[in-house]
Amino acid sequence: MADHLPHMLRADAQENRDRVLRAARALFAERGLDVSMREIARRAEVGPATLYRRFPTKQALIEQAFAHEARQCREIVRDAWADPDPWRGLCAMIREVTELNAQNQGLVDALGTAPPGTFDFDAHRTDALHMIADLCRRAKQAGALRPDFALDDFILVLMTGRSLSAVPPQARSAAARRYAALTIDALRASPTAGTLPPPAPMVPAMLAAQGAEPGR
Amino acid sequence: MADHLPHMLRADAQENRDRVLRAARALFAERGLDVSMREIARRAEVGPATLYRRFPTKQALIEQAFAHEARQCREIVRDAWADPDPWRGLCAMIREVTELNAQNQGLVDALGTAPPGTFDFDAHRTDALHMIADLCRRAKQAGALRPDFALDDFILVLMTGRSLSAVPPQARSAAARRYAALTIDALRASPTAGTLPPPAPMVPAMLAAQGAEPGR
Repeated sequence: MADHLPHMLRADAQENRDRVLRAARALFAERGLDVSMREIARRAEVGPATLYRRFPTKQALIEQAFAHEARQCREIVRDAWADPDPWRGLCAMIREVTELNAQNQGLVDALGTAPPGTFDFDAHRTDALHMIADLCRRAKQAGALRPDFALDDFILVLMTGRSLSAVPPQARSAAARRYAALTIDALRASPTAGTLPPPAPMVPAMLAAQGAEPGR
Repeated sequence: MADHLPHMLRADAQENRDRVLRAARALFAERGLDVSMREIARRAEVGPATLYRRFPTKQALIEQAFAHEARQCREIVRDAWADPDPWRGLCAMIREVTELNAQNQGLVDALGTAPPGTFDFDAHRTDALHMIADLCRRAKQAGALRPDFALDDFILVLMTGRSLSAVPPQARSAAARRYAALTIDALRASPTAGTLPPPAPMVPAMLAAQGAEPGR
């Protein structure tokens, strides 16, 4: 029995780590990033000491909890950017990001609006914004994206899409698909489109403290 | 001094009531309806007993806290419905409701998604949905609203507009105006509009337990 102990301890540590990550993901998905470490420990049924031994900071926990989704987002943006048809790429990106968004309340907070410096995501976020800016520029040149589109509009629809995670589960996937399709029609160049008021300064608000500003 | 006491007590009771309502409005606006009575008492700096004496249930408190906004919403819907140009009425309603929405995180929860039976708002909500359904029917007939619009889309954009209250204050009003204008373009009949996937069943989810179903 005694020589099984180290193995059992390791298994126990791994099990605790997984429980914490599951609890954190569930709580972030339900309520966004604004849950306390204490609530996460309680949901995971581990003591605070165990929680802090595995994840010394909330930032470390957030980063681990969203590692998979962050990778997915990067792939979505890269695939969109690499599409030879920029409008098709942009539409696919809107659909896929909206779907992710609808499944996860905390995700957009984590990827988009977390305080700069919080993450390893910072650099990826700036890269992603540059790629999206370039994609949108090409989609405008192709005459498919409305000429008065601003990159801030993309952040705006990402932000508003966060609420999809609050739609009752039986309507959520349909809501995400419908919302993405309506968003695409809102952004499509159209002879009947109205005049837009000035864009909301979403990107500057987001990047201010990062000292990065992607090209428009 | 003694004969001032009843007056002072009344003034004190009134002051406590106002403090509770201010605290409740602030917390609902910041975080939605999901705050506890305990947190509201703490923010208002009154004891739980005082809170429950003024507002025996959370529902009573919610109703009082949003009485003013509920009246505003009713007026917005009535004015829109009474506009002889249904598309102009619908656009005004989208702009005004979006603005209210952006200023108040709890409002849409209270008016739109609170459990049926919670409120005096129930009847008003059903009335409002009937008026909006009628307005949309006329806007379609006039060829201005896209023919594949469903009433659920209105609930969908209301729901997603909730997130506007999370936009940093310096960008919030501009975000609300821009979002409303993009929404209007998404809903406008257009020869270039895409094919929408089926609508998300938002209205049934909302009204299921009320036994009411407005005409489409």
